[in-house]
Amino acid sequence: MSLDPMKRALELAEEASLKNEVPVGAVITHNGEIIAEAHNTKEAEIQAIRHAEMIVIEKASQALGAWRLNECSLYVTLEPCLMCAGAIIQSRVGKVYFATKDPKGGAVASLYNFFDDERLNHQPIWDCGQYQEEASLLLKNFFKKKRQK
Amino acid sequence: MSLDPMKRALELAEEASLKNEVPVGAVITHNGEIIAEAHNTKEAEIQAIRHAEMIVIEKASQALGAWRLNECSLYVTLEPCLMCAGAIIQSRVGKVYFATKDPKGGAVASLYNFFDDERLNHQPIWDCGQYQEEASLLLKNFFKKKRQK
Repeated sequence: MSLDPMKRALELAEEASLKNEVPVGAVITHNGEIIAEAHNTKEAEIQAIRHAEMIVIEKASQALGAWRLNECSLYVTLEPCLMCAGAIIQSRVGKVYFATKDPKGGAVASLYNFFDDERLNHQPIWDCGQYQEEASLLLKNFFKKKRQK
Repeated sequence: MSLDPMKRALELAEEASLKNEVPVGAVITHNGEIIAEAHNTKEAEIQAIRHAEMIVIEKASQALGAWRLNECSLYVTLEPCLMCAGAIIQSRVGKVYFATKDPKGGAVASLYNFFDDERLNHQPIWDCGQYQEEASLLLKNFFKKKRQK
């Protein structure tokens, strides 16, 4: 793979931050290549549901012409929320990697453990922790600046 | 209100069925008027995340020019899944009514109880059961036909 996917997701999170969006970035890879990338566009689109994961899933489905993403890996800088973890299951994303946990809203390892729930019809493989400090610092600095305004 | 919103949601579910989409319909009301309506478009758009609730939230946010839907009520014919219940919380929808429960995937009263989770930053008021039989029959007939093909 030419580019480290989580590093690219971090760059996208930084881009979001510069546009006054909560800094979360996501990419999806297929056969080792990045096929979709996105960051939050909630403020720009005035849509609460335009999280990085939702947009990147949409783009990957478009790129592959399929709604099943079993052969794909999703890299995101923050632990997915309830909505995004649900969307990942709906889309059958094969593997999910996130950089830092979200103790207030995370649905994979914090508030809920959706990806390990065998009642649901898909359990993605998942892991976390790569670039944890960088992703966490980006979010902390963003909200610190917000509070100062 | 001129039109019963759940009855309209049922009509939309029927429309979906005719287009070979899982028959789920949804509407959003604001000040007693329907401001957005939708049904599943997963097959047509080749997108696993295009559930009726996701589309109707998007349309309502566009109609109001706001991502916060606290003053809105969402009517949907089937209990929201994890993704859609998460989206309802993200969008701060004030009230949610669904016709029939989804024992295999429902996140409000079946597998999970998201709307009663006080760790999350929004708890919609919710109720269910209106047109339960009609909504349930629509789904049963749809999947029965599918199996016969």
